[in-house]
Amino acid sequence: MQFCGNPLDTRSKYAAIAQRRCQREQGHTGPCGEFPYLRDLESSHPAVAAKIKRDSTMTTGASWSSKDAGPNRILRWVMLLSDDELLAYGIDMMKLKPQVVAKLRDKAATYDECMAVARQLTWATYQMPNAPTPSSDVRVYLEECCGPLTLGKACCSVCRLPLSFDLFAEARRGKAAIETSHMDPRKHDPANVAFAHRECNIAQGPMTLNQFYDWIQGILERAERIGGRS
Amino acid sequence: MQFCGNPLDTRSKYAAIAQRRCQREQGHTGPCGEFPYLRDLESSHPAVAAKIKRDSTMTTGASWSSKDAGPNRILRWVMLLSDDELLAYGIDMMKLKPQVVAKLRDKAATYDECMAVARQLTWATYQMPNAPTPSSDVRVYLEECCGPLTLGKACCSVCRLPLSFDLFAEARRGKAAIETSHMDPRKHDPANVAFAHRECNIAQGPMTLNQFYDWIQGILERAERIGGRS
Repeated sequence: MQFCGNPLDTRSKYAAIAQRRCQREQGHTGPCGEFPYLRDLESSHPAVAAKIKRDSTMTTGASWSSKDAGPNRILRWVMLLSDDELLAYGIDMMKLKPQVVAKLRDKAATYDECMAVARQLTWATYQMPNAPTPSSDVRVYLEECCGPLTLGKACCSVCRLPLSFDLFAEARRGKAAIETSHMDPRKHDPANVAFAHRECNIAQGPMTLNQFYDWIQGILERAERIGGRS
Repeated sequence: MQFCGNPLDTRSKYAAIAQRRCQREQGHTGPCGEFPYLRDLESSHPAVAAKIKRDSTMTTGASWSSKDAGPNRILRWVMLLSDDELLAYGIDMMKLKPQVVAKLRDKAATYDECMAVARQLTWATYQMPNAPTPSSDVRVYLEECCGPLTLGKACCSVCRLPLSFDLFAEARRGKAAIETSHMDPRKHDPANVAFAHRECNIAQGPMTLNQFYDWIQGILERAERIGGRS
């Protein structure tokens, strides 16, 4: 699909880093927009729409103590800047612990990658069991960008069990039961991103999905051999 | 082993709930003590000794926001009291979220169970690769309580790979690389407690160890069948 691409007016202090652009189809009528395919979810399930926007464009929320956490939920493309460039925005990476810097840098992605991830996550959302049905123009848009929508068939990317849309509503201590998961946690692009159960995403941890599968296979082999399973 | 059992003088506000007692052998000479077998570690590796005491006797530190967290790291036997009894100690369980209450109640254990767990964890510690060698009286004590010490052979209870004593020193963001793990997270007794890698303990989550093995076996079966492993 060819996008309109008209620059969008944002008042973000980071506007100079990446120009946000209209993601509607080229030659569209009506106003420009960045997330046109989220229109239905924004009215029926605003928390889901907000999660898709947030997870696709922002670094992870810091779960550690705020003092050493560095910027919490910052635009992913801001993390592409050098330490010197970030300093001009008041972000002193040198003051952060090395592991915090590594984590933030791992989350870096271009604006276009983030836009593609948002489309991919919305496309995945509509394929979950119990997901609402998209209006036809949203469906056409997503299918042109991401491929055919097979309603009700979405599985957790880690455990491969069905991932119900209803889980979006279940949150414990502010944590969603569904998390955005990366087959390789250090790549934020549509081929590498999907939804997973929270516990599956936690179990995968910083491993790639294939590393995780190898890891648990080793665990099972040793547990069988040592006879520890009862 | 028969323990001395003389009451120990503590100034804890919870002293009336469980009388802490001398855990030295009956008829010992010298002063009474609650953790006589931790003497060596207390001088050579005080953080390890403190961890064993803390994990055996206290509920988990709350990783969630403090407002709803309830009492953070409270004596496990205090959590055996009823809601009404706890109110007299200034702990209002009714004000906590149900999942926080459930988590705290899951950690409840008697004083004797906690003492037995502390012995078990110390016994396990001395069997880790690169662990210091216990002095002979400590070794005799632990072997009489827990069985023969096989130096250098300790494995992670979850993944069954060797668990090096050196990992105690590695901490990320204040989190130890070794965690106390429970085969059944709702039972705190020596048959059920061991050390595990932090990532293994996190992956097991609230499942029993057998549930975890069944879970990852299902994941691998589905990943193979769907052909998702590359």
